Amino acid sequence: SDMAKRKVIGILGGMGPAATVLLQQKLIQAIAAEDDADHVPLLVDVNTQVPSRVAALVEGTGPSPEPVLVAMAKRLEQMGVAALAMPCNTAHIYADAIRAAVDVPLLDMVEQGALTAVAHLPPSALTSGGRIGLLGSTALEKLGLYATPLRRFGRAALVYPARQALLMEALKAFKRRADDPTARAILEGVAQDLVADGCDVLLVACTEFSLAVDVLPATVPVVDALDALVTTILEAADA
Amino acid sequence: SDMAKRKVIGILGGMGPAATVLLQQKLIQAIAAEDDADHVPLLVDVNTQVPSRVAALVEGTGPSPEPVLVAMAKRLEQMGVAALAMPCNTAHIYADAIRAAVDVPLLDMVEQGALTAVAHLPPSALTSGGRIGLLGSTALEKLGLYATPLRRFGRAALVYPARQALLMEALKAFKRRADDPTARAILEGVAQDLVADGCDVLLVACTEFSLAVDVLPATVPVVDALDALVTTILEAADA
Repeated sequence: SDMAKRKVIGILGGMGPAATVLLQQKLIQAIAAEDDADHVPLLVDVNTQVPSRVAALVEGTGPSPEPVLVAMAKRLEQMGVAALAMPCNTAHIYADAIRAAVDVPLLDMVEQGALTAVAHLPPSALTSGGRIGLLGSTALEKLGLYATPLRRFGRAALVYPARQALLMEALKAFKRRADDPTARAILEGVAQDLVADGCDVLLVACTEFSLAVDVLPATVPVVDALDALVTTILEAADA
Repeated sequence: SDMAKRKVIGILGGMGPAATVLLQQKLIQAIAAEDDADHVPLLVDVNTQVPSRVAALVEGTGPSPEPVLVAMAKRLEQMGVAALAMPCNTAHIYADAIRAAVDVPLLDMVEQGALTAVAHLPPSALTSGGRIGLLGSTALEKLGLYATPLRRFGRAALVYPARQALLMEALKAFKRRADDPTARAILEGVAQDLVADGCDVLLVACTEFSLAVDVLPATVPVVDALDALVTTILEAADA
């Protein structure tokens, strides 16, 4: 094995803790291991006290998470990580501020998620441009988080759910309970609406929803940005 | 809420990574949360490159994990954690060396696991002393890891499996694949042997086995040392 070269990846986690656990599970499952040493070493800051992204960006009722995220990134860099990753889509609104504060790369879940969604568009999208349905927090549309990289990767239209406010309630319910049945039903219904609205691909762009992807319709490809981040972390760990 | 007082717990993890994930899941499930902030903040060193405990202690073929574990503990202490926890039973053989190197407490999974097992002995154990069947690595018996605290907590006899070498093969198989069917069948059979041998309680003393407790017989109480550690972490975070 090639242990000595294996790089440590720093995780800006706790947003929420269940999504941080899911990322670690996906990293474990992605590797055919003979022993512990075959797995990617991580330094995981499960900071459950990062100010709420929803309160700061959607509701306008709380402090900015930016200084806390920047401090977390700096500390992980000081501890010697080779790269940073952040299993929270919405928090990527602060990605540029984090990048300005550290020298190690911040792997970009939003960029990789957008790129993977485009790669899953059907051949018809070559002429039509294609439609990507976005399942995420209200902050994503408000701040154009996925719109910016998508424009770089082609002509696909980003479709936001008509019932976005309801989806936001589901997001909050998932933070209370990962298998909340009402939240699962809302996610399922909103996803079906997006398919009925002609979406070619569903893009899961909230790590709370990554815990409930089993409710999503199988009639179109489903791309989870968290899976795209896993792929990117595996590449960075072996680079 | 009482966020400002919530303490950060440092996790000496990666032994193996799946057990480190299971600990985080149990901590999430133990809390009735309204939002991320209600969960325990953690700094998790998922160090998959800690030298093998089995190689060093059982097979005598590898370097000691001690200096690596001591360095991990020191670094987490420097990062400001209030206490340390280590979701690996066998690694507690190095607990005294870790304690000698840091000023923050190392929560003791072995001591808490032993205490919880004694608490689950039946009334008949008041006269007989009781029998506790130990499901763990071969290193535990070799180094008397659970025998020492158990003597402090009463007169219970520690019963090691007759097929310990086979159980060790299951442990290694679980590290390759958490749901390995052969390893699950071995664990189930060895546990049934312990019950047939008159054990009053089964003590799960390997975090790889914590991932497969569903195969254990329901005829006697099953105590998982990892659950005892979860309880201790929750107390330390709120202390």
